[in-house]
Amino acid sequence: MINVMIYNEFVHELKDEKVKAVYPDGIHSVIKSFLEKDSSIGKIRCAVLEDHRQTLSKEALDDTDVLVWWGHMRHQEVDDEAVARVCRRVLDGMGLVVLHSGHASKPFKALMGTDTHLLRWREAGEKVRLWNIAKNHPITRGLSETFTIPHDETYGEPFGIPNPDELIFLSWFQGGEVFRSGCTWRRGEGKVFYFQSGHETFPIYYQNEVQLVITNAVKWACPVERHCVADRGKGNTPALEQIRN
Amino acid sequence: MINVMIYNEFVHELKDEKVKAVYPDGIHSVIKSFLEKDSSIGKIRCAVLEDHRQTLSKEALDDTDVLVWWGHMRHQEVDDEAVARVCRRVLDGMGLVVLHSGHASKPFKALMGTDTHLLRWREAGEKVRLWNIAKNHPITRGLSETFTIPHDETYGEPFGIPNPDELIFLSWFQGGEVFRSGCTWRRGEGKVFYFQSGHETFPIYYQNEVQLVITNAVKWACPVERHCVADRGKGNTPALEQIRN
Amino acid sequence: MINVMIYNEFVHELKDEKVKAVYPDGIHSVIKSFLEKDSSIGKIRCAVLEDHRQTLSKEALDDTDVLVWWGHMRHQEVDDEAVARVCRRVLDGMGLVVLHSGHASKPFKALMGTDTHLLRWREAGEKVRLWNIAKNHPITRGLSETFTIPHDETYGEPFGIPNPDELIFLSWFQGGEVFRSGCTWRRGEGKVFYFQSGHETFPIYYQNEVQLVITNAVKWACPVERHCVADRGKGNTPALEQIRN
Amino acid sequence: MINVMIYNEFVHELKDEKVKAVYPDGIHSVIKSFLEKDSSIGKIRCAVLEDHRQTLSKEALDDTDVLVWWGHMRHQEVDDEAVARVCRRVLDGMGLVVLHSGHASKPFKALMGTDTHLLRWREAGEKVRLWNIAKNHPITRGLSETFTIPHDETYGEPFGIPNPDELIFLSWFQGGEVFRSGCTWRRGEGKVFYFQSGHETFPIYYQNEVQLVITNAVKWACPVERHCVADRGKGNTPALEQIRN
Repeated sequence: MINVMIYNEFVHELKDEKVKAVYPDGIHSVIKSFLEKDSSIGKIRCAVLEDHRQTLSKEALDDTDVLVWWGHMRHQEVDDEAVARVCRRVLDGMGLVVLHSGHASKPFKALMGTDTHLLRWREAGEKVRLWNIAKNHPITRGLSETFTIPHDETYGEPFGIPNPDELIFLSWFQGGEVFRSGCTWRRGEGKVFYFQSGHETFPIYYQNEVQLVITNAVKWACPVERHCVADRGKGNTPALEQIRN
Repeated sequence: MINVMIYNEFVHELKDEKVKAVYPDGIHSVIKSFLEKDSSIGKIRCAVLEDHRQTLSKEALDDTDVLVWWGHMRHQEVDDEAVARVCRRVLDGMGLVVLHSGHASKPFKALMGTDTHLLRWREAGEKVRLWNIAKNHPITRGLSETFTIPHDETYGEPFGIPNPDELIFLSWFQGGEVFRSGCTWRRGEGKVFYFQSGHETFPIYYQNEVQLVITNAVKWACPVERHCVADRGKGNTPALEQIRN
Repeated sequence: MINVMIYNEFVHELKDEKVKAVYPDGIHSVIKSFLEKDSSIGKIRCAVLEDHRQTLSKEALDDTDVLVWWGHMRHQEVDDEAVARVCRRVLDGMGLVVLHSGHASKPFKALMGTDTHLLRWREAGEKVRLWNIAKNHPITRGLSETFTIPHDETYGEPFGIPNPDELIFLSWFQGGEVFRSGCTWRRGEGKVFYFQSGHETFPIYYQNEVQLVITNAVKWACPVERHCVADRGKGNTPALEQIRN
Repeated sequence: MINVMIYNEFVHELKDEKVKAVYPDGIHSVIKSFLEKDSSIGKIRCAVLEDHRQTLSKEALDDTDVLVWWGHMRHQEVDDEAVARVCRRVLDGMGLVVLHSGHASKPFKALMGTDTHLLRWREAGEKVRLWNIAKNHPITRGLSETFTIPHDETYGEPFGIPNPDELIFLSWFQGGEVFRSGCTWRRGEGKVFYFQSGHETFPIYYQNEVQLVITNAVKWACPVERHCVADRGKGNTPALEQIRN
């Protein structure tokens, strides 16, 4: 059973009527509700900006296999020690699924080492067409070659990420942009997936294909063992072989 | 002409008689002296831990194409603002050549996003054999398939780096270890090369093959233009194309 | 349930007393006997050089999820049409696990597009130490950081493969060589794993760690669906979007 | 000085009035005329389907640094021995720049090992917008982030290529497709670049940005030395190191 933690900033949904109308209980509640339908997923916990210093505790993270992250306007208010705990756990095997504007979140930036907030963007509610370019990949299980999202924020290249280990989705936007909208990386022993879809003003996390991608990604990101630390010995390790010269 | 900055911690050479005997004027002086023989290399400046807050100034880094980094025991004393300036410049195109124990330096760790200090190690003066696995690569120009270093510190896998974009050298160590000893990555617009050889107690930077690798790496890491910032527009970028639906 | 086909040349075991003593019923029989202990593995069929035109039929391959390949001296006698059928199935999703001297087999060469037979080698029964550099990977599940094989043929870099998608094992050989001994690639929709261990004169396929690697690799290589052909439409595909300009 | 060979099928230009109007002396003549303006480019030779058995001789290829390939409808008529000579030279260091429908050519398919002819396509003269996602790369030197081609054949994902070593361009097509339109791979010691633009019915090879990309690519693909064969010793290579156990 996969233990999941969902972090959602949960600010827009409280302050912006338009967002509240779409996600009255927060984006995290919608994500939780579709993830819990999958029989391989065990405990699901949620953390929000307000309580994240406690909910993203060492104990909770140690008991987590995959962390899903959605944040947007308040990245700077996320506690640096909580970020360090998250990154530590990813390096020790915890999976991380970063959604939409989480590209600019502290954990994703720290793990990538680059300006992942850099991209072109436009809030214009444009149509997006996603192309599945990794047919035989656990993340695309059950998806066909292409699907559309009627309205989303536009993100465009050049996207300031390191070269992905695997490219899963490429997106076409109505206004002329393209985007590497589904990418994977390994960082330490942890697996990271970034998925671009999901602006807060549109009901994107209610869409079947999007729910399938996120559910698949959680299962893919789950480590072989919850804690996967490689053994390097301590300090000056003794030689394993004896040679003459 | 390529402008180079060499950072060397320059502590061992002052305090440890054994190291002083090998590098009386510091590792940076030896690196400078072989780099300046290459006609494509222009200005070469040096920075040491003692003066790095000034020598790694924004102005100096803005005028640098490639930064070479050697550090070992005093990584923690490197100023965080200087590290931020270095990382910023790499993301904007400056090349970075990280040597030996620089694997645990702040800039390398920040740019990789992983525990790059993690590896097996042993100070035993073992023989190392490097294998060139990228024959037609600018970094190996002039090298044959294999060469040895009579004595170096042993570094062994698993090495906590992200998947390299290119693998250039693999090393065999006398005591049973192997190591990805020459690796490249792109980070933002900058190119990064890590090269494992060069423990301070051995005259490794006087060895021809090692000098050739570092000289080649500096030329390879030099950006197409000194400052390579991609244009993403500002804020909400206007649509480039007009579509009907 | 994963359907497996094992191809073994099965010539050495019949002609060479030394090999016959180690693998009296053929290498394929030993591989079959440990694979069939795994509950996720279904039908296991075997093909040998002698009968491969029939046993590697389209029907059999269409019913196969993962093909394991061992060959050495008679690669040239493998039928080109059978090779084409194998490659076709890999591109449509079938997994391929290539063992030891299978690096020079026709299917592996065709799928890689390079001189995969190129490497240094020595039949000297040297000790090999394998290093697991991908702790949280399905192929290394249950393995520690390093294990040895007392005697194997030596393979050394430079190995004429394309850049692997993932590097799983690196090997150290007693005589000074290193080798990328566990590598993965995607080709079309199929997953390919090359594993270096397994010279015919040594009881390597009886060793626990080796059996674990091969069993894990078969499970990893199994496609999401047995046939994973992506839909690209036929001929001139109609436009999906209508734009003005 | 870089010696270049340009292969062009040269059939459309002779038979189709529309194409003849655009390229009266053949696509190769136009490519030759802009390449020869670059001071780093030396001898430029051309081969066409009609004469390729002679013009792509071993002697000519041995004297070539980079081969540019354009073909479309007559891929099957290219001689298998000529293809083998081309692939051999790429593996030994010759650069290969494959243009447009050359994705389905014999040399590209053989070197990639996959169904590189698989993609979505539409002859509709749609507008294409290319995005440069590798700012500090020799192939994009002098280009801005995006440029358009007023009319080209549409190519769409999923494209049946192996994971590229580097992704240089992504294209947006008017009708809803996206495409990895600029990709690099290393094969053996040779560098390969695929560039999607250039349908025969449009004056695409007269466009400045396209000429710049191809000129840059030729310089990038040029090997460090014309012949870059790695030395692996012959047969059973002697051990380089002597160890006790």
